[in-house]
Amino acid sequence: MNNVPAWTANLRKVTPYVPGEQPQEGDKIKLNTNENPYPPSPKVFDAHRKLDVSAFSLYPELSAASLVKRLAAYHDISEREVFAGVGSDDVLSMSFLTFFNSQKPILFPDITYSFYPVWAQAYQIPYECKPLRGDFTVDVDDYKGENGGVVIANPNAPTSIGMAATEIEEIIKANRDVVVIIDEAYVDFGGETVLPLIHKYDNLLVVRTFSKSRSLAGMRIGYAMGDERLIQALNDVKESVNSYTMNTASISLGAASLEDETYFQQNVGKIVNTRECVGGELVKLGFEVKESQTNFLFVSHKEISAKHIFERLKEKHIYVRYFDKERIRNYLRITVGTEEQMGVFLEAVREIVLV
Amino acid sequence: MNNVPAWTANLRKVTPYVPGEQPQEGDKIKLNTNENPYPPSPKVFDAHRKLDVSAFSLYPELSAASLVKRLAAYHDISEREVFAGVGSDDVLSMSFLTFFNSQKPILFPDITYSFYPVWAQAYQIPYECKPLRGDFTVDVDDYKGENGGVVIANPNAPTSIGMAATEIEEIIKANRDVVVIIDEAYVDFGGETVLPLIHKYDNLLVVRTFSKSRSLAGMRIGYAMGDERLIQALNDVKESVNSYTMNTASISLGAASLEDETYFQQNVGKIVNTRECVGGELVKLGFEVKESQTNFLFVSHKEISAKHIFERLKEKHIYVRYFDKERIRNYLRITVGTEEQMGVFLEAVREIVLV
Repeated sequence: MNNVPAWTANLRKVTPYVPGEQPQEGDKIKLNTNENPYPPSPKVFDAHRKLDVSAFSLYPELSAASLVKRLAAYHDISEREVFAGVGSDDVLSMSFLTFFNSQKPILFPDITYSFYPVWAQAYQIPYECKPLRGDFTVDVDDYKGENGGVVIANPNAPTSIGMAATEIEEIIKANRDVVVIIDEAYVDFGGETVLPLIHKYDNLLVVRTFSKSRSLAGMRIGYAMGDERLIQALNDVKESVNSYTMNTASISLGAASLEDETYFQQNVGKIVNTRECVGGELVKLGFEVKESQTNFLFVSHKEISAKHIFERLKEKHIYVRYFDKERIRNYLRITVGTEEQMGVFLEAVREIVLV
Repeated sequence: MNNVPAWTANLRKVTPYVPGEQPQEGDKIKLNTNENPYPPSPKVFDAHRKLDVSAFSLYPELSAASLVKRLAAYHDISEREVFAGVGSDDVLSMSFLTFFNSQKPILFPDITYSFYPVWAQAYQIPYECKPLRGDFTVDVDDYKGENGGVVIANPNAPTSIGMAATEIEEIIKANRDVVVIIDEAYVDFGGETVLPLIHKYDNLLVVRTFSKSRSLAGMRIGYAMGDERLIQALNDVKESVNSYTMNTASISLGAASLEDETYFQQNVGKIVNTRECVGGELVKLGFEVKESQTNFLFVSHKEISAKHIFERLKEKHIYVRYFDKERIRNYLRITVGTEEQMGVFLEAVREIVLV
């Protein structure tokens, strides 16, 4: 690699997103990427078995039509108000590309999903980060000035903190001239959705994922809901990038997952219960624990550094998420696993903090 | 839809790609999107059965590592020289975004894969179309001036015509300061690959797909091969768009497909044989048939208009591709189906042209 080829001058300048580690050892406990510890619904297993592999020789349905139809029915909205993609990352990325073509900066919090600044840079979108308050809550007034668009994760990550729908509505109302994206990746675990507002505000796009509450991170399924003109614009841009993004298997398994509301509620219920128990235990062990509306906990120990706990846990093959980043350097983000996994985790934490 | 919302001013301006029809009726013969008429390898069926659906709750492998590893072994190159994505459309789209950031126009033929101008527009890349010669062959000298990059489909679509590797090498050599993308989607059906040249020229990117010769259009699998600095740049941009694009099922089934060279060769062999037979029959029926190195035929009847034949075939539930576009308005692109399908097709054509 001595010489630098001339074509490097034409490369897009990016700072890639860094996802959580994907350790390969077998006996690990993985609490670092907010995956669901439970398998998908038995109806997903059935759908997998019933897939016609010989039909994989044909292109998938255009616009993932059957999944979109099922999502529309599930949320009781029109098919023209739903857009499906390869995880909420694909849906959000496509939304940035579609809606944020202003010279004015888009706005989002300084501590939030770290893909937002990455997409902004990749698509050369000016952006401005609005600092969360000291307690990591969003100050609604920060989002009332002129801007090129707004994106808010609600509940927020990695803080786990949710906002009231009324607060989000204030932001939407203050920004009728731009698109406001509400990233509800974690909303099923106790957040307040603004989905009903899509019929009131044509500038609101609500984004969801099957990766968390539906145990389907491996199949990459996400979607957006909003005014049909927003969805049409998204589809036009998507059709300018790749005609077929979701594959036949993900379309089918995603639709099957929506057929099993009982399993979905039980799955979410278990995680919420475990979250509350583990949160309580961590408080007893000297942690400050943010009130979570997600499938993870955002915690800071009063005496022992987050980095130390992170590294000691890793030695014990327990992976949590540590962000070496201003303001949150002394926090850990801990995905809620099964009761059993969290028992092992708590035991390990006790060994680390009670020495 | 009376009032136009203010946020529409910030929308990205695009002219979406229009894919071939996906008719839903049951008894149709679909020869319009260059899908493979045969099922994937039995090893793909096995891999599907063996997939661990409970593990779909976890994110897929980063960078589709096991598929990349298998592709590198298959082509006897380094893993650092392979990039995998959601069909070659995803790989090509990402390549446009990554490599074509010059003020100078990129170059491609006037008649070629119609997604090239769509991506250029979506990513605001200046471009210039170089007219094919009268016989639809590429004039290599057209690609020797200053430019921001070159993309050539070889064999070309929808013309079905291939170029010699020596001609492609001339283009690569004349453009060492920019990236030259050779889209080899159809190369397995008789084209000449330039893959061996990736070790000679660091500005060459070769793109392939599993959608045609591997009967996996429904699973969306494509890949690129080139100098490791090209691949690194592609990965950086991909990691700035979506950490996980290929899902767990597509990674696994793609790898399984590569394990069955015998099936692959037989599948391709059958299509090439059928193509030659059908081509011969069409000549007898008064068609001009371009010499095809692909899984489709590009034909024009000496007396009857392409549009008429297209519409009459459609009435008989036989779908071929018609492009209402300058220079090729009197041509049809016909995907090579099974022998049986092509028998029915030829019978229908006879009824139309021998009246």
